[in-house]
Amino acid sequence: MRVLGVDPGLTRCGIGVVEGVAGRPLTMLGVGVVRTPADADIGPRLVAIERGVEEWLDEHRPDLVAVERVFSQHNVRTVMGTAQASAVAVLCASRRGLPVALHTPSEVKAAVTGSGRADKAQVAAMVTRLLRLAAPPRPADAADALALAICHIWRAPAQNRLQRAVAAQHASKGRTA
Amino acid sequence: MRVLGVDPGLTRCGIGVVEGVAGRPLTMLGVGVVRTPADADIGPRLVAIERGVEEWLDEHRPDLVAVERVFSQHNVRTVMGTAQASAVAVLCASRRGLPVALHTPSEVKAAVTGSGRADKAQVAAMVTRLLRLAAPPRPADAADALALAICHIWRAPAQNRLQRAVAAQHASKGRTA
Repeated sequence: MRVLGVDPGLTRCGIGVVEGVAGRPLTMLGVGVVRTPADADIGPRLVAIERGVEEWLDEHRPDLVAVERVFSQHNVRTVMGTAQASAVAVLCASRRGLPVALHTPSEVKAAVTGSGRADKAQVAAMVTRLLRLAAPPRPADAADALALAICHIWRAPAQNRLQRAVAAQHASKGRTA
Repeated sequence: MRVLGVDPGLTRCGIGVVEGVAGRPLTMLGVGVVRTPADADIGPRLVAIERGVEEWLDEHRPDLVAVERVFSQHNVRTVMGTAQASAVAVLCASRRGLPVALHTPSEVKAAVTGSGRADKAQVAAMVTRLLRLAAPPRPADAADALALAICHIWRAPAQNRLQRAVAAQHASKGRTA
């Protein structure tokens, strides 16, 4: 399973591609950041993010795109930009018919470090270890995108089991109705 | 000047096209709503909004797209969806090289009713009068998109004068430096 993780942002949109299955060593296929100038208008910034995400999708042909789920508990201005960058990433994936999975920051942290409240350094350290990298991923912002992809690969089996269970229950209800 | 106004939303994205210049009677060229099912995933919803906005742009070839500026003082869940729908509209316009203008809800209300705190009915009533429509625009949600377009046409001359004044001041500073 090849997952492209996106840590959305207008100024820095982290992207990381990881391949593997739960329970086996994972492989990093690429990591980077799509940047747009903070003083540019929102329109050209979103166009630049779309172009950047498209290039990553073209190059790596992932099976699925995992995007950080945006909450608004943070700074209002930042959150709006994050929501907009995230919309572009989701749009690019969906337009190609790729499934999109959303994971919260705490789900991602818990998946890779065991704690939903881990800090950035801890996440970067675990990403480095889990992907067997010689050094922490550069740029640092992109470590979160790799963590998202890892989180998805590890959570996917549980989610699939859950979805099958729910579907089976619905089907059984349908039969008794 | 032909302006396509967008009142962004995931469930209902209002669109209205108005042609005219400040100080002259305005003409409505079209009004409608792009809808997406509330129970669908975010990806297909954003793809549907992109398709809808593209169709409106293809049909009406506006000179500019005016989009409501999103604030997060409202319901958190709604605001995220609004920010994402707005991102798609801005992206569609910018990708074609069209200028994008953002106006706040209170700017729009003040422009068409004289009060930044006018209610929806008052805005719809003024849109109907200003565009000389036989009846209030249907669906009602789309009246806000028309109001955005009207707001832009009326504010544009002032903004242009302001921009020219700022540019002139910069140029004069440049000469004395």
